[in-house]
Amino acid sequence: MNTEEKLNMTMLCDFYELTMGNGYFASGYKDRITYFDVFFRDVPDHGGFAIAAGLNKIIDYIQNLHFDEADIDYLRSKGLFSEEFLAYLRDFTFTGDIWAIPEGTPIFPREPVITVRAKAIEAQLVETYLLLCFNHQSLVATKANRISRAADGRVVLEFGSRRAQGTDAAISGARAAYIGGCNGTACAISDQLYGVPAGGTMAHAWVQMFDSEYEAFKTYCEVFPTNATLLVDTYNTLKSGVPNAIKAFNEVLKPRGITKCGIRLDSGDIAYLSRKARKMLDAAGWTECKISASNSLDEYIIQDLLRQDAKIDMFGVGERMITARSEPVFGGVYKLAAVEDAEGNIVPKIKISENVGKITNPHFKKVYRIFDKATGKAEADYLTVWDEQIDESKPLELFDPEATWKRRVYTDYEAKELQVPVFEKGKLVYQQPTLQEIQDYCKKQVDALWDEVKRFENPHHYYVDLSQKLWDIKDQLLHQKR
Amino acid sequence: MNTEEKLNMTMLCDFYELTMGNGYFASGYKDRITYFDVFFRDVPDHGGFAIAAGLNKIIDYIQNLHFDEADIDYLRSKGLFSEEFLAYLRDFTFTGDIWAIPEGTPIFPREPVITVRAKAIEAQLVETYLLLCFNHQSLVATKANRISRAADGRVVLEFGSRRAQGTDAAISGARAAYIGGCNGTACAISDQLYGVPAGGTMAHAWVQMFDSEYEAFKTYCEVFPTNATLLVDTYNTLKSGVPNAIKAFNEVLKPRGITKCGIRLDSGDIAYLSRKARKMLDAAGWTECKISASNSLDEYIIQDLLRQDAKIDMFGVGERMITARSEPVFGGVYKLAAVEDAEGNIVPKIKISENVGKITNPHFKKVYRIFDKATGKAEADYLTVWDEQIDESKPLELFDPEATWKRRVYTDYEAKELQVPVFEKGKLVYQQPTLQEIQDYCKKQVDALWDEVKRFENPHHYYVDLSQKLWDIKDQLLHQKR
Repeated sequence: MNTEEKLNMTMLCDFYELTMGNGYFASGYKDRITYFDVFFRDVPDHGGFAIAAGLNKIIDYIQNLHFDEADIDYLRSKGLFSEEFLAYLRDFTFTGDIWAIPEGTPIFPREPVITVRAKAIEAQLVETYLLLCFNHQSLVATKANRISRAADGRVVLEFGSRRAQGTDAAISGARAAYIGGCNGTACAISDQLYGVPAGGTMAHAWVQMFDSEYEAFKTYCEVFPTNATLLVDTYNTLKSGVPNAIKAFNEVLKPRGITKCGIRLDSGDIAYLSRKARKMLDAAGWTECKISASNSLDEYIIQDLLRQDAKIDMFGVGERMITARSEPVFGGVYKLAAVEDAEGNIVPKIKISENVGKITNPHFKKVYRIFDKATGKAEADYLTVWDEQIDESKPLELFDPEATWKRRVYTDYEAKELQVPVFEKGKLVYQQPTLQEIQDYCKKQVDALWDEVKRFENPHHYYVDLSQKLWDIKDQLLHQKR
Repeated sequence: MNTEEKLNMTMLCDFYELTMGNGYFASGYKDRITYFDVFFRDVPDHGGFAIAAGLNKIIDYIQNLHFDEADIDYLRSKGLFSEEFLAYLRDFTFTGDIWAIPEGTPIFPREPVITVRAKAIEAQLVETYLLLCFNHQSLVATKANRISRAADGRVVLEFGSRRAQGTDAAISGARAAYIGGCNGTACAISDQLYGVPAGGTMAHAWVQMFDSEYEAFKTYCEVFPTNATLLVDTYNTLKSGVPNAIKAFNEVLKPRGITKCGIRLDSGDIAYLSRKARKMLDAAGWTECKISASNSLDEYIIQDLLRQDAKIDMFGVGERMITARSEPVFGGVYKLAAVEDAEGNIVPKIKISENVGKITNPHFKKVYRIFDKATGKAEADYLTVWDEQIDESKPLELFDPEATWKRRVYTDYEAKELQVPVFEKGKLVYQQPTLQEIQDYCKKQVDALWDEVKRFENPHHYYVDLSQKLWDIKDQLLHQKR
């Protein structure tokens, strides 16, 4: 049995969730209803938007939240927790509500992507795991979306398992990469578990194993005649690899009438080598042979290669996607937004900071995306207090929360609420789409953004505005606290 | 049940391991004995050395390697594999030998950290998982070692679960951080599973939950009087947080004669705030109150803070350690070094590259660390062919493999073989040290490096030299192939 098989993810939490839990329990705050928002402050790589992902694992986790006897024993051994609290944990389940923006949706800084309404201890306990799943998969989905857009319609495959930060980084990472727009993965278990299409052909070891490169290629074509992609850079790409590949194709595939095949470049100057290889393959009649390239690729290098007219049909992207190497942290946070008082009134809460960008948006909120009906494009996101309604038949005036004199009025618009109910009173009420549906949905939603928001460098700032009511409440709380 | 509980890690492989496996099977290479080396080419962050880690998960994986019926069914559904190969996989186990440099050892580029001797299909299949575990944990252990050294004897805690790249990144990451020198973690499950000491106190939500900051602090001190570390930056660190903390300590701890307590700074200018807070605490008689700091710390910021005389006793390091943010990829590779011919002779293999640094060291090898007996310091590592012996009573001449005229003779030295046998004919023969033993061993081995190798910027180049015999074989293979 693997270590993972024994894991009960309930204990994947920061220890302070448990000490605070004991504290809430001891001080009569156990059943106090709280509202927490998951949101993030900055888009990685200075991009214009991120892609939400990770909800699949959050759903699994919430459904299975429980402490087993081994967990209770472990906690008791720390000598910190009261027996009453440990007894409470023994029967612990999640009984609250969760709303979330669906996976694959473009998301923006400072809007609540996930909102948890639950008793204080329950809401506190889930903090670490929710953030971990949201941060990890959103990070990779966002990076994969950039890389897929750079490839401009060409195939992008996720090749990063061996450099992933742990097993889940490989497995869930391949899933997130698919949501963001990748066409497949090298990771077999992600195919088996999540249906991310997996494929692959050979490593350098295959070529070295045989007495000659030609023999290695010929043998591979014989075993997999309809799926022969040959790695041509083990010795010398243009002098040895490509000529031997053509010879093997001629010898094994041609007599069988097979025209589909491939070569893979994994080192050297990919732009130059791909153009040369393309000419050699075409001259030999292998015009349908696809050229793949791998070797430390990312969105910037792919753009550069295509600008230099590289003849590449398929990009295998490894470490720079699976770890989001250029910015490997997605900074989602989990902040208290409101509590309910004894009468069930929702009392907004705020966290102040020296850094203005770190001040939270208080209250139980709704998130709307405002689409221009004429163009179908997303114009801005709009946060309101939970009990506000938008009447689409009336003009909607939005203003920049950091420069309130900047105002814009929308008339012909659709206000689409982004969060959907996922859990109600601890029960799953959300029907999860298939992975393919999530990928398709993501593509459509990204298409609905203006190109200006999609630039890699210095994108247009997409506004996340507050309703007048929400802004007033926030302003009032700020003045109270200072 | 969690998704992880169902996982059989055998399928966490690149799909090409399986297509190559089928290819070896079909072409008569199934039982060919192969030798593969795991090694890396560059130390992250331009450091002088890395720390080996991840062997614990590799051992679990190898012991449990098997394909279950669901795996076979999945593979059959791909329409690529022969029934004979699938039948072979049904009875598949690992029957080979593995040698590894123990966890916690400082390691250097281009030396074999792990060597696998096994039948081609077996050796090929384990590539992805071995690399994944080695790369991930070595990455974090190396980063944690840098951060711990920067803290110069102060306590360093791993706080990064919420920003980790998936569940295993958090769990195994905390373990690797401990190996590298961290004193503990916030991640409860890493304590439960691996014994990494976990601790933690409160989040901002705790402070916000109460009607006032003072009430939040007082309540916490009452629940955990002997373990009260108060987070003082929710509203205003110096005007509100520290004075309220002192008031709560005076009110709750003083009457009980408790002098040990703490505050945590999580935003603002940590150097300035810590000096001010220290003065306020000391003036109030709380000289034993420890000050912790967290907020995007790494080795560079910690060095800077200490240089500015920050009064910090304990550093909580989050995202920049758990993701190794400044360089989040550890580039370990898995390369064929030799095969056995029909007579059992070991035939060395090499991989050429346009990039000289990517040319492999061929053959089944041994790795020695040469210690100067007078100083106890490590002087260089030395790779030999497997059948070479070092006679420590005789001088040993080492030369730079990239500049063979640079030579140095050692006389009073100890040549310590670094790899130990881990699996013999598929059986585990290695007694794993405890995590604490690994941490202690790591510290000793790092102490045995010259300070010049330990600099963060521009460290001294530590040599990994080849024996004359190994160098000659490599040179000969290079000439043959070009």
